[in-house]
Formats: sequence, C-alpha cells, structure tokens
Amino acid sequence: MSATPPRHIRLTSHAGGFGALPLQWGAATPAERGPVVGTTARPSHRNVIGTHSGSYSVYRALAVAAGALSREHKADLTDTSPTDVIGPYPQWSDASKIVSLDPWGAMVSEVFAAEIAAGYDIRPTIAVTQAHVVLPEVIDAVRTGRLKPDARILTAGGAAVVTKAAIEPVWWLPGVAKRFKCAEADLRRVLFEETGGMYPELVTRSDLEVFLPPIGGQTVYVFGNPRDLANPEVELTARVHDECNGSDVFGSDICTCRPYLTHAIEECIAGAQRGGVGLVAYSRKEGRALGEVTKFLVYNARKRQVGGDTADRYFARTECVAGVQDMRFQELMPDVLHWLGVKKIHRLVSMSNMKYDAITGSGIEVGERVDIPPELIPADARVEIEAKLAAGYFTKGDVPDDEELRRTKGRGLAT
Amino acid sequence: MSATPPRHIRLTSHAGGFGALPLQWGAATPAERGPVVGTTARPSHRNVIGTHSGSYSVYRALAVAAGALSREHKADLTDTSPTDVIGPYPQWSDASKIVSLDPWGAMVSEVFAAEIAAGYDIRPTIAVTQAHVVLPEVIDAVRTGRLKPDARILTAGGAAVVTKAAIEPVWWLPGVAKRFKCAEADLRRVLFEETGGMYPELVTRSDLEVFLPPIGGQTVYVFGNPRDLANPEVELTARVHDECNGSDVFGSDICTCRPYLTHAIEECIAGAQRGGVGLVAYSRKEGRALGEVTKFLVYNARKRQVGGDTADRYFARTECVAGVQDMRFQELMPDVLHWLGVKKIHRLVSMSNMKYDAITGSGIEVGERVDIPPELIPADARVEIEAKLAAGYFTKGDVPDDEELRRTKGRGLAT
Repeated sequence: MSATPPRHIRLTSHAGGFGALPLQWGAATPAERGPVVGTTARPSHRNVIGTHSGSYSVYRALAVAAGALSREHKADLTDTSPTDVIGPYPQWSDASKIVSLDPWGAMVSEVFAAEIAAGYDIRPTIAVTQAHVVLPEVIDAVRTGRLKPDARILTAGGAAVVTKAAIEPVWWLPGVAKRFKCAEADLRRVLFEETGGMYPELVTRSDLEVFLPPIGGQTVYVFGNPRDLANPEVELTARVHDECNGSDVFGSDICTCRPYLTHAIEECIAGAQRGGVGLVAYSRKEGRALGEVTKFLVYNARKRQVGGDTADRYFARTECVAGVQDMRFQELMPDVLHWLGVKKIHRLVSMSNMKYDAITGSGIEVGERVDIPPELIPADARVEIEAKLAAGYFTKGDVPDDEELRRTKGRGLAT
Repeated sequence: MSATPPRHIRLTSHAGGFGALPLQWGAATPAERGPVVGTTARPSHRNVIGTHSGSYSVYRALAVAAGALSREHKADLTDTSPTDVIGPYPQWSDASKIVSLDPWGAMVSEVFAAEIAAGYDIRPTIAVTQAHVVLPEVIDAVRTGRLKPDARILTAGGAAVVTKAAIEPVWWLPGVAKRFKCAEADLRRVLFEETGGMYPELVTRSDLEVFLPPIGGQTVYVFGNPRDLANPEVELTARVHDECNGSDVFGSDICTCRPYLTHAIEECIAGAQRGGVGLVAYSRKEGRALGEVTKFLVYNARKRQVGGDTADRYFARTECVAGVQDMRFQELMPDVLHWLGVKKIHRLVSMSNMKYDAITGSGIEVGERVDIPPELIPADARVEIEAKLAAGYFTKGDVPDDEELRRTKGRGLAT
C-alpha cells in the first residue's frame, strides 16, 4: 500500500500524560487508529499497558540491568520492512474480527512515519521475511515420490520456499473480554489478581485499552503467494498448530503433534504446487497453554493410575492436576487468519472441534477437514487420539466406544 | 531421598501477611529452606513475587476470567512425582551455584508434605518424566549404521529412551543481581521499569527475595541414568541449546540450530551406549532472547543491506535493531547443570565461547569441545557460523579472516 501522507500529530494531555497518542482500535485507517506505543524510554508517550516482545521484555530488562543495553536505545528499522505485502484487508478495521494482534504491526515504519519522525518510539509487533525450510519428513516425501520438486515451491534439494511472519500479542481488552463473554472490568481485575499482581494499570488505568501481555506469540508459514490467502477462489490448505516442544522438536511418541504438523506441511506444499496456497500458523501454547511442567505431571499421573494410561481417563487426569482440560482458548486463534485476509479454508488440516468451531464461528468458511493418516500415529499416541475422537474431534473413520477407550492403553513407566 | 519427618509449621506475621512461610535460599535442608508459595488463592500465604507456570500464568488468569477454572482449584498431585531421583546434591544448598530455579521444585509433595497438609498450596516448579523420542535424523543414523539399536538407550525402531524434566524459572533476586554484577535494588527497579511496570512488588516488597518471572523455562533430556550426571567418572556428553523455532521445528536453512541439536542427540545416544550419559538442556530463549519478531527484522536488514548478507556484518545488524548482539545471558544457564549435580562435562557439544565461559566459570570442568560436522552446516548458514568463529566461537578448524568474512554471503530475498 502507499504511504499515508504526512499529517499533524495530535497530542493529548489526558491521564496518559502529555504526549500519548490516542488509540482507536478497529478504525478504518492507521491515521485514525493510531500507533501502539509501548516504549519504556518515554513513559509519557505510552498508550498501552505492558511492553514489547512478549515474555522477552523480561530479558530486555535484564540487559539494561546488566549494563549491556541503553534504556534509550531506539531500534534502527532500516531495511527491516516486510518482504511481502500483507493487507490491508477489510477485516483490519472490524474490531470484532481482530482483538489479539495489531494488524498494522508489520508496517509501522510506513504508516506511522510521521509519528516516528516526531520522536515516538514505535516498534513493529509483526515481522515478515522469507526462508527456505528443510524438513527430513519432506525430504522423505520427495525420496518416496509423494512430493516432486518444482524449483518454485520446493527446491531440488527438498527445501520449501516460504514467506513467514512472527507476531507478538497485542490485546485490545474490550474485544478480548467480549470473546470470553465476560465484562472488561472483570477481565482486567482477574488478569491482575490471578497473575499475582502483574500490571496494576490493568485495574487503575481503564483509559488504556490495549495490553501487551508477556506471553509467547505466533509464527505463520505461507507456502505460495501470501496475497492468495485472501482470495477465496484459490484453494487454501491450512493448519493451526499449538506448540508441543516434546514432539515438535524432540519427537516424543506420546502424541501426534510433529507427525500431524509435518503432514500438514506436505499438504501445504502439494496444495501450493497445484496452484493453491498453504498456511501453517504456529502458536506458543505449550501443553494446551498449561505449560510443560503441568504436562509432564499429567504424563506421570496417567501412566501410574490404577489400570494404566487408558484413553477413557485421558482428559480426567489433566483436569485433576490443572483444574481444566485445556487453556488454549481457541477464541483468539482466528485473529491471525483475519489478519491474512482469509475468507475460506478449503482444506483444514486439523481434527480439533475447538479449532473448527472457533474458525467457522468467526465467519471463515471451512471446506474439507483432513485427518492425520493412521500410519503417522505413533503406537503410544493412540491413547490421545482415541480420547480426542470420543470427545468430538473430527474423523472420517470410526469413533471409539467406551469399551475401546478402556482397552486403549499407553506404555507404562520403566520405574 | 527419604521424606523429612513431620514438623511444626512456623507461621510469621511480617509484611508478607500472617501465614507466609519464610524462604531461606540455599539452606541445607528443605525444612530450613522453606517452600516456594506462589498461590493466588490465599494472598496471605504468598512468599514470592509473581506466580507459577511462567508466561502461562496469563492463560491461567484467562481461564478464571472465562469461568472455566475455579480460582480455588488446588492441583491434585497424586501419582505426579518424579520418575527418577534427581539429587539432592551439595550444589542445592550453595546459594552461589543455583539462583534461577528451585532445586527442591520436583519433590515438593515429599519434602513439603507437612506444609501441604497444613493447607498451603505448594506446586511443583519442576516435573520429571520418561519418554521415547523419535527423530528422523536418528532414524537416518541407524539406517546408515552410525548408531546401532541396543534395546536399552535406542530401540529397534530408532526411539531413544530418555528421562526428561521441565523446569520453570524461580529467581532468587539477590543471587541473580550478583550474577549480573549489579545491586539487587537496581535489578529490581530496572525489572519493574523496563517491563513497563510489571510487578510493583519488585520495588515495594524488598522482603520478598524470590520472583517467578513470566518467561519460558527449560527442558532437560537425559540419555542413560540421570544419577550418572553427578558422577565425574562417568563420561558426560552434553549440549546446552537455546530455542530457535524456525530451525528446531521448521528446519530453516539460515542457521545451524536443528542440525547441531540433532547431532548432539546422536552424540548423547552414542555416549550413553558406551557406558556414559548424555544431556541436552533446552532453554526457551528464541532469537538470542530477543524474540522472533526482532529476529525476522534482522534477517531482512541483513539480506537488504548494500553488499548483501555478509559474515563481516552479521552481528552489526542485530545490534542496530536490538541495541545488543545477544540477550541470552548465559550467566544463569549453568544452574540447571548444578541442579543435576554435574561436576564435569567430558564432551561439550557446543562451540559457543559464552556458554563455555559460563559453565567453566561456575566451577564445572569441561573436557573436549565438539564442533558441528561441516557437512551438517546448511549453505546459507555459513554467514552465521563464520561470523561466530571470528567472534571467538570454538573450532578445531580454521578461523576466517576479514577477507573471508566479507566474501561469505547468504542468499538474497526473492523480492
């Protein structure tokens, strides 16, 4: 898009202090929306609660404490702008469609050039780059003939050519509260109290509607032309994947996470090669957003319970330890799809009913659902997959009955 | 270890409120040390700043706000205790050796049984379990004969049998300040100010010395018997690896992260098979703890600068954007090794001088250093590896000179 013309910077002198720019979430143009200013160097410029980089803001603070980083450092954004144009799309100015990321976050250098020139420290919350990704599973698909290099989507060496984007969380609290069907004031109070007192401004500064939470963000990988994501006529193959370090990186055989992810990548490559486009959105929500300590505690409880690790008690053990079965809250997940302009997913590579319901509930059409090929399910992961099928996960195959759930048992502990 | 005998619970009525148990970091026994109590259900019981689960505390708060989780839920820890005994080791009661995790964090059910029975909500900050991990690179090593299944460390199917532990950050602020050579008061103030005002208790409650920061933790994978980690007579092969989602999961060819990690796992398996023990410690420090948005911005700046992505300007581009080259602060990293009782690493699978200096500086002996085999370095990652070699990374090979650094150039952008 073309740069917005230089314009007058409106300064305010409300409770935010002299100099904070107004933020009007969901406004039609960046000029009306205003930039997210999370700088710590000029407190009077801040118009949000929290600061940039999610959890890594704590490391940034350490760097200042250790004397390695000047607190006045302002990022030199020369040459950092997106490699591919994403948007703007109509969804960007619909405050009901996007509440947990800043749609303008990748192009701040351009759309807020006037504010930056006026001395505001405005940082990108999204970065878009290009990469070649080489997965052993894709190499294997080439070797066995399931995929064929085409020198466009897939190189002769088996590298997939992608555009990727890293996205930090930017929460518009009124919209987040609406998604969770609670009052904004209650959301703010509970976020404050249940984190043990993080950010009193959540309760004292109701004039600040935007929160940069110290949590992990997400990364999207696009196979093919990113502009095609917004064209419902172009076949879109997509997976929304939640982090599972134990499988995604280390290949633990207790779940299907990496096999399903690499299968999705293979489907994305094949889809892009036949003229479509592929998308993997990867969210940092380890262990259903319960964290890995809770996950490992649950593994032990599952394997040690009387009768062993059976599918019929799969969810119960998580609930005993964590109080809930899942904290991923797919309610916020579709935001990234709306940022990319997605209107229709032709092939959704996910069996999760929670993800499906969230996506379709947000107004995106879903065509076919692609389940994980049975041969990719590790033997020890049958407990998980059967429990999920019985709980409502999509499958083209059979749904196990109670007797089968009791019979499906995972490996015990060696000790 | 045997359970400590039941004992009288000392209640205090200092500023922490009636009922908060004292915490004496580095004390010789758990009874003297006292439990970490980060519960939000009983504020008067809290003896730390922040709460459990690192960043995922924000999701827990969301779960309460959404009405899915009772704020009174107390974890049912039945059957969750560690699968393998780790410690206690002398390092656990040396307040200079461990400052960023709770060495007693895995065995709270046992050592703080009396306090739990008295009604304190004490949660594990470490969980230890067992797993089978299946990596395509290990399967390939079996196929080509570099590794041989032995049905103990490596199954016939190519699965490595591991003990693994997830560890949440628990920071003893006086000790963390000492590591960074700054005053504790300054550390507290900067942590508060540079996060945009997170946890005012950092500055108002100097009586609370322990902070549970909302950041990612770490995971350790042990190949062989975990008790052997503490025996300097048993050959230890170890890698300390910092998260790189783009390579570790997606196989981006711009760096050596996954190839070096999988090489280390192969070395760990081979070491354990010849009677030693292997260790991979994986830390959530994406993009040198700058976060992935900054990382992708730097990629673009590197590839677009005049002359292209050359090794001689590799670090400069990161510094322009982030203000520093690196925020990983290896100063805290050796804590996990001391938790495991490590005294000597016979084979350190890392070329990082920062990691080496931190490990040896903490009193752990390092024998051989194992560099990444040249054939595992992706062509586009030569920029990174040569820049690092010139900056002091260990190698048995040649260190590139200025001319070579200028000549080594990565792939440009397609657009």
